[in-house]
Amino acid sequence: MAYDTTNIFARLLRGEIPSHRIYEDEHTVAIMDVMPQGVGHTLVLPKVPSRNLLDADPETLGALFKTVQKVAKAVRKAFDADGVVVSQFNEPAAGQTVFHLHVHIIPRFDGVDLKRHSMEMEKPEVLAANAEKIRAALAQ
Amino acid sequence: MAYDTTNIFARLLRGEIPSHRIYEDEHTVAIMDVMPQGVGHTLVLPKVPSRNLLDADPETLGALFKTVQKVAKAVRKAFDADGVVVSQFNEPAAGQTVFHLHVHIIPRFDGVDLKRHSMEMEKPEVLAANAEKIRAALAQ
Repeated sequence: MAYDTTNIFARLLRGEIPSHRIYEDEHTVAIMDVMPQGVGHTLVLPKVPSRNLLDADPETLGALFKTVQKVAKAVRKAFDADGVVVSQFNEPAAGQTVFHLHVHIIPRFDGVDLKRHSMEMEKPEVLAANAEKIRAALAQ
Repeated sequence: MAYDTTNIFARLLRGEIPSHRIYEDEHTVAIMDVMPQGVGHTLVLPKVPSRNLLDADPETLGALFKTVQKVAKAVRKAFDADGVVVSQFNEPAAGQTVFHLHVHIIPRFDGVDLKRHSMEMEKPEVLAANAEKIRAALAQ
């Protein structure tokens, strides 16, 4: 299916809508998920457009997952998490809701279940505070 | 935490225990998950040892996720799936049970829920037949 240049992440990457950015390099951007499944739920997006992993340029995946690793280590440190889930959904049947490739990074804690995705909008001040914790961990 | 060279995937990569291999290249191996959460549940492992994504050599991630993409496209085709979930778990709190980095690739179908992981061993003949379907899709 064709890439829709008006999807919310495309607009966010163009700066047309705001986001809590925690990291950016030549190839990738990391932001806070505004409907987190848990504290510190973060997303990593490649700048180059693709609908999801299935149609992505294979040569872009190294840079994408280097950033995923960097952010996963930072969120673990920032929230003193017991574990980290990394997930990526392709097409609606798999749970994809925005059609620009993105990778979820979710800190996990012993005994704490995840919330369902896209159920509740987090308060901007909570996202801003969590973003700051992750930026601090990235800077260490 | 240190890498344990006796973990089941390390032994599998050394050929000490059998697996349904569907793909192998210089850096990666793809196998059927023996306790699948759904039909065609596949795993991709890097050959180089790491406990999970958190301690992996960043330079190895490009090759790993190129294979993940290749296999994700093949499982989608092999099972005519509506979507594909890609996930990777770091540490027990996140659901990791084998401590050699691996990525789950799970075909999804509209209206079909996933089974919980590691609940039931699939019949070897079913795994062999599914592996053959994925190999055929990879060869196309």
